[in-house]
Amino acid sequence: MAMMIDASRRLATRSKSASAAAAAAGLLRSALIRSISTGFREERDTFGPILVPSDKLWGAQTQRSLQNFDIGGEREQMPEPIIRAFGVLKKCAAKVNMEYGLDPSVGKAIMQAAEEVAEGKLNDHFPLVIWQTGSGTQSNMNANEVIANRAAEILGHKCGGKFVHPNDHVNRSQSSNDTFPTVMHIAAATEINRKFIPSLKQLHDSLHSKSVEFKDIIKIGRTHTQDATPLTLGQEFSGFTTQVKYGIDRIAGTLPRIYQLAQGGTAVGTGLNTKRGFDVKIAAAVAEETNLPFVTAENKFEALAAHDAFVEASGALNTISASLMKIANDIRLLGSGPRCGLGELILPENEPGSSIMPGKVNPTQCEALTMVCAQVIGNHVAITVGGSNGHFELNVYKPLIASALLRSVRLLGDASSSFEKNCVRGIKANHQRISKLLQESLMLVTSLNPKIGYDKAAAVAKKAHKEGTTLKESALNLGVLTEQEFHELVVPEKMIGPSD
Amino acid sequence: MAMMIDASRRLATRSKSASAAAAAAGLLRSALIRSISTGFREERDTFGPILVPSDKLWGAQTQRSLQNFDIGGEREQMPEPIIRAFGVLKKCAAKVNMEYGLDPSVGKAIMQAAEEVAEGKLNDHFPLVIWQTGSGTQSNMNANEVIANRAAEILGHKCGGKFVHPNDHVNRSQSSNDTFPTVMHIAAATEINRKFIPSLKQLHDSLHSKSVEFKDIIKIGRTHTQDATPLTLGQEFSGFTTQVKYGIDRIAGTLPRIYQLAQGGTAVGTGLNTKRGFDVKIAAAVAEETNLPFVTAENKFEALAAHDAFVEASGALNTISASLMKIANDIRLLGSGPRCGLGELILPENEPGSSIMPGKVNPTQCEALTMVCAQVIGNHVAITVGGSNGHFELNVYKPLIASALLRSVRLLGDASSSFEKNCVRGIKANHQRISKLLQESLMLVTSLNPKIGYDKAAAVAKKAHKEGTTLKESALNLGVLTEQEFHELVVPEKMIGPSD
Amino acid sequence: MAMMIDASRRLATRSKSASAAAAAAGLLRSALIRSISTGFREERDTFGPILVPSDKLWGAQTQRSLQNFDIGGEREQMPEPIIRAFGVLKKCAAKVNMEYGLDPSVGKAIMQAAEEVAEGKLNDHFPLVIWQTGSGTQSNMNANEVIANRAAEILGHKCGGKFVHPNDHVNRSQSSNDTFPTVMHIAAATEINRKFIPSLKQLHDSLHSKSVEFKDIIKIGRTHTQDATPLTLGQEFSGFTTQVKYGIDRIAGTLPRIYQLAQGGTAVGTGLNTKRGFDVKIAAAVAEETNLPFVTAENKFEALAAHDAFVEASGALNTISASLMKIANDIRLLGSGPRCGLGELILPENEPGSSIMPGKVNPTQCEALTMVCAQVIGNHVAITVGGSNGHFELNVYKPLIASALLRSVRLLGDASSSFEKNCVRGIKANHQRISKLLQESLMLVTSLNPKIGYDKAAAVAKKAHKEGTTLKESALNLGVLTEQEFHELVVPEKMIGPSD
Amino acid sequence: MAMMIDASRRLATRSKSASAAAAAAGLLRSALIRSISTGFREERDTFGPILVPSDKLWGAQTQRSLQNFDIGGEREQMPEPIIRAFGVLKKCAAKVNMEYGLDPSVGKAIMQAAEEVAEGKLNDHFPLVIWQTGSGTQSNMNANEVIANRAAEILGHKCGGKFVHPNDHVNRSQSSNDTFPTVMHIAAATEINRKFIPSLKQLHDSLHSKSVEFKDIIKIGRTHTQDATPLTLGQEFSGFTTQVKYGIDRIAGTLPRIYQLAQGGTAVGTGLNTKRGFDVKIAAAVAEETNLPFVTAENKFEALAAHDAFVEASGALNTISASLMKIANDIRLLGSGPRCGLGELILPENEPGSSIMPGKVNPTQCEALTMVCAQVIGNHVAITVGGSNGHFELNVYKPLIASALLRSVRLLGDASSSFEKNCVRGIKANHQRISKLLQESLMLVTSLNPKIGYDKAAAVAKKAHKEGTTLKESALNLGVLTEQEFHELVVPEKMIGPSD
Repeated sequence: MAMMIDASRRLATRSKSASAAAAAAGLLRSALIRSISTGFREERDTFGPILVPSDKLWGAQTQRSLQNFDIGGEREQMPEPIIRAFGVLKKCAAKVNMEYGLDPSVGKAIMQAAEEVAEGKLNDHFPLVIWQTGSGTQSNMNANEVIANRAAEILGHKCGGKFVHPNDHVNRSQSSNDTFPTVMHIAAATEINRKFIPSLKQLHDSLHSKSVEFKDIIKIGRTHTQDATPLTLGQEFSGFTTQVKYGIDRIAGTLPRIYQLAQGGTAVGTGLNTKRGFDVKIAAAVAEETNLPFVTAENKFEALAAHDAFVEASGALNTISASLMKIANDIRLLGSGPRCGLGELILPENEPGSSIMPGKVNPTQCEALTMVCAQVIGNHVAITVGGSNGHFELNVYKPLIASALLRSVRLLGDASSSFEKNCVRGIKANHQRISKLLQESLMLVTSLNPKIGYDKAAAVAKKAHKEGTTLKESALNLGVLTEQEFHELVVPEKMIGPSD
Repeated sequence: MAMMIDASRRLATRSKSASAAAAAAGLLRSALIRSISTGFREERDTFGPILVPSDKLWGAQTQRSLQNFDIGGEREQMPEPIIRAFGVLKKCAAKVNMEYGLDPSVGKAIMQAAEEVAEGKLNDHFPLVIWQTGSGTQSNMNANEVIANRAAEILGHKCGGKFVHPNDHVNRSQSSNDTFPTVMHIAAATEINRKFIPSLKQLHDSLHSKSVEFKDIIKIGRTHTQDATPLTLGQEFSGFTTQVKYGIDRIAGTLPRIYQLAQGGTAVGTGLNTKRGFDVKIAAAVAEETNLPFVTAENKFEALAAHDAFVEASGALNTISASLMKIANDIRLLGSGPRCGLGELILPENEPGSSIMPGKVNPTQCEALTMVCAQVIGNHVAITVGGSNGHFELNVYKPLIASALLRSVRLLGDASSSFEKNCVRGIKANHQRISKLLQESLMLVTSLNPKIGYDKAAAVAKKAHKEGTTLKESALNLGVLTEQEFHELVVPEKMIGPSD
Repeated sequence: MAMMIDASRRLATRSKSASAAAAAAGLLRSALIRSISTGFREERDTFGPILVPSDKLWGAQTQRSLQNFDIGGEREQMPEPIIRAFGVLKKCAAKVNMEYGLDPSVGKAIMQAAEEVAEGKLNDHFPLVIWQTGSGTQSNMNANEVIANRAAEILGHKCGGKFVHPNDHVNRSQSSNDTFPTVMHIAAATEINRKFIPSLKQLHDSLHSKSVEFKDIIKIGRTHTQDATPLTLGQEFSGFTTQVKYGIDRIAGTLPRIYQLAQGGTAVGTGLNTKRGFDVKIAAAVAEETNLPFVTAENKFEALAAHDAFVEASGALNTISASLMKIANDIRLLGSGPRCGLGELILPENEPGSSIMPGKVNPTQCEALTMVCAQVIGNHVAITVGGSNGHFELNVYKPLIASALLRSVRLLGDASSSFEKNCVRGIKANHQRISKLLQESLMLVTSLNPKIGYDKAAAVAKKAHKEGTTLKESALNLGVLTEQEFHELVVPEKMIGPSD
Repeated sequence: MAMMIDASRRLATRSKSASAAAAAAGLLRSALIRSISTGFREERDTFGPILVPSDKLWGAQTQRSLQNFDIGGEREQMPEPIIRAFGVLKKCAAKVNMEYGLDPSVGKAIMQAAEEVAEGKLNDHFPLVIWQTGSGTQSNMNANEVIANRAAEILGHKCGGKFVHPNDHVNRSQSSNDTFPTVMHIAAATEINRKFIPSLKQLHDSLHSKSVEFKDIIKIGRTHTQDATPLTLGQEFSGFTTQVKYGIDRIAGTLPRIYQLAQGGTAVGTGLNTKRGFDVKIAAAVAEETNLPFVTAENKFEALAAHDAFVEASGALNTISASLMKIANDIRLLGSGPRCGLGELILPENEPGSSIMPGKVNPTQCEALTMVCAQVIGNHVAITVGGSNGHFELNVYKPLIASALLRSVRLLGDASSSFEKNCVRGIKANHQRISKLLQESLMLVTSLNPKIGYDKAAAVAKKAHKEGTTLKESALNLGVLTEQEFHELVVPEKMIGPSD
């Protein structure tokens, strides 16, 4: 059997996605073990004994939650960043608790076990779904139980024996009510800093490069979807670039409140059962562990009873979604065609659009991104509803708020990366088409005003519109100016900025 | 002075919009009277005496609310359909109460006064804003006070003397808790039936006419915003028509629950202080008065404590908004141009789009309509939040829910009418452009498959795409078929339906 | 190796959740096979060759999508009901295509392979995420490729050899543009009928039972969260029951439009490349296969270009969420305590609420349910945004719309079941507390009016309020009536309905 | 007649609400004038001549919009802050245009006329509704026409004569496409700074005062709505205070992007038809005029094509709404009663709650505020939908976005003020009730652990719970400690913070 597990582990390490591999390995291991194990061991909590699969590290409270909350199936499990953040927090808590008297041998074992959780190695021992108690108590207990059992193993004791106690040791000086908001903040700050902002920056840089690349391509502008005065394609992309730039500022601007940790507030925010200074020390430990500037929350009552910081961060994601939806929509419309659309952009072709028709490049990356934006906008409402419905000392929509925000962060980051890599980076300007549309446009008639007057200019445009000709043809036809004069006057290059 | 008031009344009746005129007249009258009146009279409630402007029919509780809820100003007054529905309800209540022993002379005066409210004649005596007590109690008392004072006047008594008592007579057998939901339902059912559904029907018919008018115009289809196989413009409009048709079904499908009236539930749904049968009789009276099939609510507890029927109706409006947004977006994009857009539709020109450029017809009706749709989608969330937050025997988000729904109904109905009248009705097909795009399209190459095989067909398309020529030019150039063969094979008419 | 796979299969069939087991088995099998397989085979599409894991049944287009859309990881895979619905549809398509000339041996193999997909046996061959092309093309191709390869296997041919062709055979007479909306409708109708409505019915019945069980328990009513006139606990629950009853009507009322299938519209709704009658036959086949009353869509253009039917169904879920949020909130507040809350209900204790404090029963089922409601409300906005943003002949937010709706349906159904089973069913009335509160209440003073007059009654209440005594104490103290008179007058039983 | 107008003006100045008065005066004046005027004058634009009411200053384009957009009636007129901001902008534009060569006599007249618009004196000449062209062009033209006509009057010319030209003079160097976003930003920044933030600060200060006032009142905590460990009422209010404090930070944090003005971008963002430096000068002029730190937008393309700054600001309002909903909900539940609720707070009584029952104080201010929060949450979705749907160089949901944000700002500010003034400020603690609940609570049993051990402590609690007695009674009864010991151990004062 061991061989099989080893095989799966090797598989895992070879795999592209470490977490997926870990999950696969876990499932594999547990499926295999379960099929051969005698089956179950008894764990107990204040409710009494309960059977737990022998190959699992969790305990009684986790098992009870599994049975009481059969909602949504495996896809609805608590997001991995939350599990990992529990690892970070419990490691730091053990470290600080040792300063306050926790037995060092137990403390170190907890730290080691928690580190494994933080690294995602024990993911398959976290089976609980999002839809449980609204304080996340059961996931906190899941973490306590798994770490306690794993620490006991490390110390040579058996699983379930409570040599390391989930409550008295692992959860020492803590309450679900302060740990869960703490891991919410750790997970969000980590994901936003490590993945989301870098993805947006990459997208920003790519759009900026295009803006520079396209700086001399003059094209027709469009307002109300109608032809308008010209601008450069680079200017158009500079608008997109600015939107993403501000998006980065927006999400970054919410971090100061995400960096505030509830830890130390315990059950209702008072800090009962902690020692003075515990809150500051634990925040410092988390900051050191994560290399992010976490601090203890200024007001613990607010930190437990409300999740305004998440509603706020979700608001930034919502704004970014509005921006990206605009950008992706413009790009797909500007790339529409190949013959019967606007056709100004040539989008990279990543997959067959049509088996026979060349040039039918479906803007699939735009589609994936805008679908993600729609989901993020929806999640924002979910988070707002959850955030507004807290009662008294505790908001009990925590797992919903956490999971919706983390999903939005992940999806929006990944979709931005995919969009950048598989679309923006490869966009080319269709020079010929852009130029043709610009020349055909009637908007350039405004350049004739100074020379031939408003009335004659309007007559030129009207004639061209009516007869479907170009402005030049119409002007020459009406005899209001020569071809040379026309070319001297109608210079789109002079229409793309203020005059001196 | 009287002359001036008369003048304003005449103005009002001449005015296009009766309600606006009534409002104007009211404001005028009260402003004038206030400027000359000695000022105030004393009214009282259980809180004690309070000064009320002498030219106003309202009483103490209304005045108190005015002072306690200084939120949003005049624009935020309770919507007129609610005021009018109070007139309808109070008239019916008096009628039924007479059957249960209310003094007929008082009852008839109440009926007459309430009729004036129902007709909008006393609108300027309803100054309260939406943002008051969440049960709408203050607007119910406003109605009771105004009707009581007006009925007293009718009977030759003075205002404020309580010859007709707002509670004992006008509000008899009622509670704010059942009257407000009742007027919500009366107002919504009336607005939906009288204005909203007719507006949608008109839009439906107009789209249907276009669908018939355009039935023979074959055009390029677009999927993923990219060129696709052809369809007729009539078929495209038949999709819009079907969306609106189902929209009518959707809103109509919510009416059975809107027709259920809470009246008779009094304070908590039990019907305390009513006589058996009162609830059925009052619903019948309202049905007769409005000519709409109102019935008494099956369960009065639900009818007071929740407003699911409004959340549901708002959901129908939300779906209709999604439909109309799609339709208006397509129409503006299909009408984009005049030179550098898709240009398949010619939209009616209602105002100058550009002072010099002919053909720049901004799709302003599409813009107004889609803006309205966005607001309706937002109001739906507001209504959902309000609907989900009731407590115990009473939902106290009633004025919010009522006002948001009525605003959505009004805006969506008016915008649909405006869109129909000022846009859809006048849409013309740009035959030349449609035909040109269709002929230029490469999608028609699929018709060549049976004759020359997939590979050669693909080669034709690729060459055309690469060289920017038409399929025909490419095919002839490659020598794979003759011009006659091409015309026999490439027949868009055969591509717009299943084959036999 | 085979043994291991067999083991996993046996595991799967023993497992409580068949789909989870199938998934586990799949993962196990593929992980094992992959670890020993030589690795990859070459598949190709019009883009050229590409390597695919040899143990997987998918082909080139699936593989390309996997690589181009690295968004969200495994948790974001296309929902299983969509995969299964593809199985149903492809089976029916093969069946109908045989009527139109598809080689019966190929047709039957396709039917068999498709049946395996419908049964969830090939779930692990569907790796694509939701966030792909907005038409769902890649999932359609995934289904075509897997079924083609599996059918080839069945017929003794090798994977990738295209003996059964994904496009020409499996996708015959179809386009992604009509298959994806068709599977959306099949999946939604199936989930709603098979799981969601039964869950709601069970909840309805349980609430109704409680309403009957509690019919004689008179309690204080509460409006504005303040004490109000009494009602029975049964009446209170009858309000909840009615909300759920109407909820069932609401979702059922959306089904007629969900039963309309787009199949037969092919690329843009015209039905190009199908034979006349194909659309009707395929709908009939699906109806027969699923035993649900599917019909062909009245207008295929609408069915491809819009997903109003899903926006509508989501609106029903949104309303149901508003209802359930109200119910769950009331239940947790009525069950608050044990000492310092309202305490009228005793909720079942499913897990330790506090390790030391008896009676601290956290309303965790209410919390899970209300969190789900918040997510459903959010998903509704996501679906609305997606539904409103279609362009021309195709809405390209299909996978978003489908996945969000199916997630809402699943979560709301499961959470309703869990709430029913683990909470509602076990709710007990705290008779003593209910009675104590009712007796202490001052609202009963209204019963004294007829006997001692309004003024004296008010004096009794004021004295009791001021001195913190009961009404009886106050009344006796003031000497306005005797104890016997008090008991004759203050009879809550007479306050819970209209009088005769 | 003049007398009547004067009367109305005097009225206006006397009136409490200047804007309402101005509106009333305007309506009065126009109604009167209209009733006696010969009626109409002819105005013209490029579309031709059109009749305009002779007493109105608007011109042809305004009149056309009035007729083409009959949507929603008077309540839907463009919000007053937008009108006033147009006054500010046009005044500044004239000032800067004089630097660039505008005739000073014309320029000064424009400045004077614009100043009247900025002061709200010409409000009744702005009849257009929100639901017009999505660029706000028609409101820009309304401003141009009114100011041109008024400036002409000032210079002794007649209305409609175009001595001062709406386009050439008033709109010089401008386009609707840059003026409307500019006035959006001016209006929002002004309203947020002048009214909204001060209202929130006042609420913050009032909550903070309560937090100090209540700092020594120890009460039962509540988590999951269930009894939990104690905290002080001051601590509870400190959570509310912190929420509002951060709310102020949140909205203030969005201002840097609101301070960026689009002016100078003209039609598509390029600044065509302006002179270099115009954009910087106009922003400086607006900053000076408003005393707010406006600057020219870093990127004009972004500033016209997107309104992310408004989506962002609306996100801050959304978060503040979530906060205020939490606060208002807690306050109404803590104030519930008088007998059968939690009853810890005594809310001020502003109006009769019940005609007979003393102590029934409905939390009407909480209700108004939470209803407003629901509307703001809904408006946020409307703004997000509008913000995400821009096309190319211009977002055409401007009036929707502007009006929804300004309504949210106004309502949330006013409701916060009303809540502060009529509720928070007057909240009193019900010391007796708070103390009684605390003493009855079983949560205090945790204090016994150190002395008598976990098991005996649990036994004490269980007995008390079962028998409905206090902990003390139970402890004494079980004989585990003496009364004196009990009082020494059970000291809530020691439970409200960390230990040393």
